[in-house]
Amino acid sequence: MKTFFCPTMVDCGKDVLETLPDIVRAYGSKVFVVMDPFFQDSPLQDKIADLLNGMDIVFYAKVQPNPRDNDINEGAALCHEQNADVIIGMGGGSAIDTAKAINVVATNGGEAWDFVRSTEGTKRQIEKPLLPLIAIPTTSGTGSEATRYSVITNHLTHAKATIKSDLIFPNRALCDPMLTMTVPRKTTALTGIDAFAHCFESYIGSKANDFSDLFSLKGMKLFAENIEKVCADGNDVQARENMALCSTIGGLSITHSATNLPHGIGQALSGVTDAPHGGSIAVCMPQVVRWTLPQGMKRFAETACIFKPELKDLSEEEQAYALPDILEELFSRIIGEKITMASYGLTEDKIDDVVKMAFTSYHGDLSRSPRVPNEEELKELIRSCL
Amino acid sequence: MKTFFCPTMVDCGKDVLETLPDIVRAYGSKVFVVMDPFFQDSPLQDKIADLLNGMDIVFYAKVQPNPRDNDINEGAALCHEQNADVIIGMGGGSAIDTAKAINVVATNGGEAWDFVRSTEGTKRQIEKPLLPLIAIPTTSGTGSEATRYSVITNHLTHAKATIKSDLIFPNRALCDPMLTMTVPRKTTALTGIDAFAHCFESYIGSKANDFSDLFSLKGMKLFAENIEKVCADGNDVQARENMALCSTIGGLSITHSATNLPHGIGQALSGVTDAPHGGSIAVCMPQVVRWTLPQGMKRFAETACIFKPELKDLSEEEQAYALPDILEELFSRIIGEKITMASYGLTEDKIDDVVKMAFTSYHGDLSRSPRVPNEEELKELIRSCL
Repeated sequence: MKTFFCPTMVDCGKDVLETLPDIVRAYGSKVFVVMDPFFQDSPLQDKIADLLNGMDIVFYAKVQPNPRDNDINEGAALCHEQNADVIIGMGGGSAIDTAKAINVVATNGGEAWDFVRSTEGTKRQIEKPLLPLIAIPTTSGTGSEATRYSVITNHLTHAKATIKSDLIFPNRALCDPMLTMTVPRKTTALTGIDAFAHCFESYIGSKANDFSDLFSLKGMKLFAENIEKVCADGNDVQARENMALCSTIGGLSITHSATNLPHGIGQALSGVTDAPHGGSIAVCMPQVVRWTLPQGMKRFAETACIFKPELKDLSEEEQAYALPDILEELFSRIIGEKITMASYGLTEDKIDDVVKMAFTSYHGDLSRSPRVPNEEELKELIRSCL
Repeated sequence: MKTFFCPTMVDCGKDVLETLPDIVRAYGSKVFVVMDPFFQDSPLQDKIADLLNGMDIVFYAKVQPNPRDNDINEGAALCHEQNADVIIGMGGGSAIDTAKAINVVATNGGEAWDFVRSTEGTKRQIEKPLLPLIAIPTTSGTGSEATRYSVITNHLTHAKATIKSDLIFPNRALCDPMLTMTVPRKTTALTGIDAFAHCFESYIGSKANDFSDLFSLKGMKLFAENIEKVCADGNDVQARENMALCSTIGGLSITHSATNLPHGIGQALSGVTDAPHGGSIAVCMPQVVRWTLPQGMKRFAETACIFKPELKDLSEEEQAYALPDILEELFSRIIGEKITMASYGLTEDKIDDVVKMAFTSYHGDLSRSPRVPNEEELKELIRSCL
């Protein structure tokens, strides 16, 4: 069975942020805005305040790169106290994920960690209706504006887990490339790689299907055609818009399929070091493809041809085996330097920690790959990324 | 601005109908089933009754090929009287469109015709919440299970108009190819052509965008690869499943773009003669493409290559000009004979009526085409389809 489902209404395009007042007004006048601390007292905060002039707005900026459950609980209490009519999540994936989780706790009570999935199941189900949620991404990468996921971290145990529910899709998403114009080159590259990874992993993994494929193929094409442009010239509005679209389409890809090995390894690496999400994937993806081949050959070959259509007359094998180098060279070019796991401080003695975290926290990601590693193999694979 | 939006959860696959009890149970126990009269006392009606055993079910089968407003009002009264928890629309596009309209009237009161769009706007808006609606298509063509449209006919004036609202998307759609196994060859061909037309017209028209394109291209590919198989062997489950998917994806295409000239002419033809919907499009589409060229060349060329990948080394012009013959020959082959507007009883003296209806009822369709006809041109175009 194949399922198509994403109830979020996504508007993509230059200046779609201007439509915010009408959207908010339809929901009410008490607005709880969750945003990256980066935006505190920024022109964007002023802009939101201007757009929603006359409404009762609370800005909550206690958002961390790996959102903590205690910050979510604190935000939820504030949101509940304000008796908000609508929540806005504005920023990167962490801000949107935090907004989703705050929505759950503000309306259903309890604590954020009660709602995450674990190997023992989920302690609490979402039972009461949530508030309307508007997602406003300011980077092109996460795709969280079009997913049913909120990834959060336990502030005591540092464990990472996911609230997964069809109820936490945002109601609306405003993907305005003008909000991404000032994102620096390296962040543009790394978030772009994350968007690509959502499409690519959805395409090669065991949950790929006709619905996810349509998003994955389009998203990979948008990445291939725009990431170099946008890294070369951050003021290229059309390329910024295409990357915003790529990011949302990446969200739609994982909504209909799932991530796998590169995300599984990358997230474990981020747990052990301070590697940013996109970077943690960039440093392992080419090696993952090398290690996986000849498994998954056909789809690796198709991906290679998206980047280099001139490969189309080669054999499938030649196309597929060209992919790791294509990715490695492209990633170095757009990031501006060659990065490895060592760049993020990983050392030989910490490899076991990454392996352990990958197997405990990201087992699902590992198991959905065309080739599934055992612990020894994963250790070797990670060592090859140093 | 590009908008992605379809809140319907669509499940596609063999035997997905078996999941109906759990889906219904989540909504309640009083079920109002709108279905084609064809299914009255059929094994499928028995199957639904079995699946929903123990629930309070009312079957309403007063559905006409062009759903009448008075039948809808009557059905809505029954649905309201039963105090239904959930509505099921089961059958072709007419049954699903009738179910959508009954949902509006049963919950909001008034009469169906009050809610249609007209040149003067819409008399009444949907203000009260609708009931959950489950769509179960039994043909692969309409795609209504994934659209915001319900096309209805005024029983007094015979005017056709559309209820268009984001609120009337079905909540769920169960696209089970097993329900289409007994559809006769000719109906399989004609409904399949309708599904293709949704994808093709969405792709060539002025409302095409990145989101609609992803659905349109995939839907056209599914049609090209499966329609001959399914017409040659109605028991080919895989081809039936792919056509069910093609049909839903066609719905998603028009949800994100729109139909244009072939639908505009075809629907007007159906209004004047008794041409079935798919047939009315088949008899004009190749001529529409001939008449439109060289306008829209690039996308006609791409479409031709979907049907005949071997054209890929020809010029864009050669590819595009090959399309009308490709479609004409394919349509004749799958229908089993060459059909024209004369096959549906259109005569020279009725051409003016078709033109008039096209310009009054389907003006939007005409205006969204790569080449927009005036009255004289449309008359000539229709004459060429006789």
